[in-house]
Amino acid sequence: MADLTSSFCSAQPRLHIRSLNRTNGTLRSRCCKVRCVAAPAQEVTTGVKRNENIGKLQAGYLFPEIGRRRRAHQEKNPDAKIISLGIGDTTEPVPKSIADAMQKAAAGLATLEGYSGYGAEQGRGEVRQAICDRFYSHVGRKANEIFVSDGSKCDIGRLQMMFGASTSVAVQDPSYPVYVDSSVIMGMTDGYDESSKGFGKLEYMVCRPENDFFPDLSNARRTDLIFFCNPNNPTGAAATRKQLEELVAFARKNGSIIIYDAAYAIYISDPERPQSIFEIPGAEECALETCSFSKYAGFTGVRLGWTVVPEQLRYSDGFPVINDFNRIMTTVFNGASVVAQAGGFACLQDEGFKEMQELVAFYKENAAILRTTFKELGFSVYGGEDAPYVWVGFPGKPSWDVFAEILERCNIVTTPGSGFGPAGEGFVRASAFGHREDILEAVERFKKEFGGR
Amino acid sequence: MADLTSSFCSAQPRLHIRSLNRTNGTLRSRCCKVRCVAAPAQEVTTGVKRNENIGKLQAGYLFPEIGRRRRAHQEKNPDAKIISLGIGDTTEPVPKSIADAMQKAAAGLATLEGYSGYGAEQGRGEVRQAICDRFYSHVGRKANEIFVSDGSKCDIGRLQMMFGASTSVAVQDPSYPVYVDSSVIMGMTDGYDESSKGFGKLEYMVCRPENDFFPDLSNARRTDLIFFCNPNNPTGAAATRKQLEELVAFARKNGSIIIYDAAYAIYISDPERPQSIFEIPGAEECALETCSFSKYAGFTGVRLGWTVVPEQLRYSDGFPVINDFNRIMTTVFNGASVVAQAGGFACLQDEGFKEMQELVAFYKENAAILRTTFKELGFSVYGGEDAPYVWVGFPGKPSWDVFAEILERCNIVTTPGSGFGPAGEGFVRASAFGHREDILEAVERFKKEFGGR
Repeated sequence: MADLTSSFCSAQPRLHIRSLNRTNGTLRSRCCKVRCVAAPAQEVTTGVKRNENIGKLQAGYLFPEIGRRRRAHQEKNPDAKIISLGIGDTTEPVPKSIADAMQKAAAGLATLEGYSGYGAEQGRGEVRQAICDRFYSHVGRKANEIFVSDGSKCDIGRLQMMFGASTSVAVQDPSYPVYVDSSVIMGMTDGYDESSKGFGKLEYMVCRPENDFFPDLSNARRTDLIFFCNPNNPTGAAATRKQLEELVAFARKNGSIIIYDAAYAIYISDPERPQSIFEIPGAEECALETCSFSKYAGFTGVRLGWTVVPEQLRYSDGFPVINDFNRIMTTVFNGASVVAQAGGFACLQDEGFKEMQELVAFYKENAAILRTTFKELGFSVYGGEDAPYVWVGFPGKPSWDVFAEILERCNIVTTPGSGFGPAGEGFVRASAFGHREDILEAVERFKKEFGGR
Repeated sequence: MADLTSSFCSAQPRLHIRSLNRTNGTLRSRCCKVRCVAAPAQEVTTGVKRNENIGKLQAGYLFPEIGRRRRAHQEKNPDAKIISLGIGDTTEPVPKSIADAMQKAAAGLATLEGYSGYGAEQGRGEVRQAICDRFYSHVGRKANEIFVSDGSKCDIGRLQMMFGASTSVAVQDPSYPVYVDSSVIMGMTDGYDESSKGFGKLEYMVCRPENDFFPDLSNARRTDLIFFCNPNNPTGAAATRKQLEELVAFARKNGSIIIYDAAYAIYISDPERPQSIFEIPGAEECALETCSFSKYAGFTGVRLGWTVVPEQLRYSDGFPVINDFNRIMTTVFNGASVVAQAGGFACLQDEGFKEMQELVAFYKENAAILRTTFKELGFSVYGGEDAPYVWVGFPGKPSWDVFAEILERCNIVTTPGSGFGPAGEGFVRASAFGHREDILEAVERFKKEFGGR
């Protein structure tokens, strides 16, 4: 492989040329001809050093990688009718009153009365108030603490930018990959360690069946930030009130901030398992909460979420975290789409809220079907009761192998547990987001292929 | 002012209590009572250190500050009919065929056929292709180099996260505040220097009437990144082809990357002033371009933009910048709203494109009206020909004073030039985004108040 570096020409001393043709090793002429040929034979580099933090990342983001493998399987098996229990993507139509509200907002944009330009970066006042009334008033939060956004994934990126590279980070292991990846990108970690399958400096709080999927806090290192997804993606575990009290006490003792991801909280039925971290007294001084309409109302494509930052949450110098989050939201964000916000507002009215709950109930039935099937097949099954994810154990087998085997034998896409962290090894995640007929068909295929094992 | 720090209680040694009541200096009891009172008398801090980079920022983001002053003026003068030529926010309805497409997409979400969940984080293929066909095919760019997003402001934040704290940055002075503020937040600058009114390490490339609003590159320091907004916000100056060739040669010589913000490019009429940086040969090896539907189709509230990263753009080690941007977009972004994307697609069809051009022409007429008025009143006037902004000089007067005077005398909101950087001092920006009757009314007020000066 050629890797030639030289001056571009004397007048441009900082431009370097490398041979582009790295696959066959040939060298092309390396002077100014590069400007004239149709297919450039050589590559001109800038003098900008690549961000070494991004360079620490190992592979692409998990779900595009799964998509790539799915496409490869489809190409190899053009007739296969692939069913996806992979990425947690909603499949059912948006409830009518909610879609109607968006339709009306979109139509209104063509009229003088209905047109709106920039809204407040923090979201429309009525939307913030409605979110507060539905989910947070009873736990003492206020509308001005709620920031409406284009989704939790994006808010997590903005939170990372706010906290900055000097903070230390803990994550549940396994957990939603964005916490780790964004921490790596922002420079909160060291490089990847092949032996531990993790990034240096990052605290991985192992969550496995042995500890009821709740971290052993007596052995956890103190960090500035603790990402805590509840119910957890991917394990589907929802913490009990007692566990969350323990978490809050741990954060308060250590002066940590919990970034509580409640994206699936509406899937919790058990009253002994809180939906919001703010149900725990004292959490307002050590936690903020992100959430989203994506899995509540099928808004994965519409894009709408929110983050709650209590006024009482303070940095070590007493400065309110909410002030900095407001600065981030006004500086590198410009408000969620007015059409999406109209939809969000409708979700929180009586009719929309009822429709939304019915939608959630539908996916919960899917989860129950999957959970029952895996149980009947004799697998170790977790989650799926207070969450739309079922976490299935294949002890001793690498997750990607299990993923490949299920794809090969059943034409079903799952998500390999190791994609969520080293402690996810030996598991796959099955998502309950799917049309009922697909879930039932998937169940039949599982029974056929794994029934006799 | 009391600033008391103590242990919260012995069981929580890392929690500190400060007196919240900083305004009147009184101290309240400082033990566990904080948990029981309705209005907390004391503040519990975490141990998380505030991001010192955000701490370098001086004031709030410019436009919320202007909004604050506007509201204060309105409160003082409840009967005043304030006209805003301040923030560049579109006011005219979205053209019909474009709003129709969004309406249809929103309605479709309630149906099985029209529903869509997560799209590709990079945008829908047809939208990327349509953007490419309309704006970039003729300059050699390809659809896979185009990333659809929720707007340029947000993309700038993501670009800063991608390039990271180790890069050095240059900005036009004056320019859109987000370049500077996001650089400060990401740690690319030192602190604010009161004497120069700028941030340390940041290269301010002065653009004033004396240099035709184009930086003196012979005296500019080399930086990794060069933010270049063209036509410029706020000065309204659009660079000539020769000037952009000079900029590209400068970047290539230095191995810099130009972040070219083309948010207002459609306002350029003069064929000798390029709309895209990629019209300049060689730019694909030293530039990326951000753009937006906000000022093209009145999408400030709808939220849709894009960024073009040429495959040829490389870091110093030869690694393609596009690969890292793709990683950022898939990690901390989740695609633009499907409804907004349907609208963007409609903007690029023949009917929508024509409607969009008519909308732009309308705002350009507004700009011409403002420009003519200020000229007739004897002011030094710039911009407003190839841009929706008119830049008016008030030599020797502080911008915020001019802003206050115009608000006081005319009930008109402008934007103080110094809000865009130190070289904006002595100017105010008037935005051409407004209803025609408001522009005409504003013009009358200006004539009445400043006609006899």
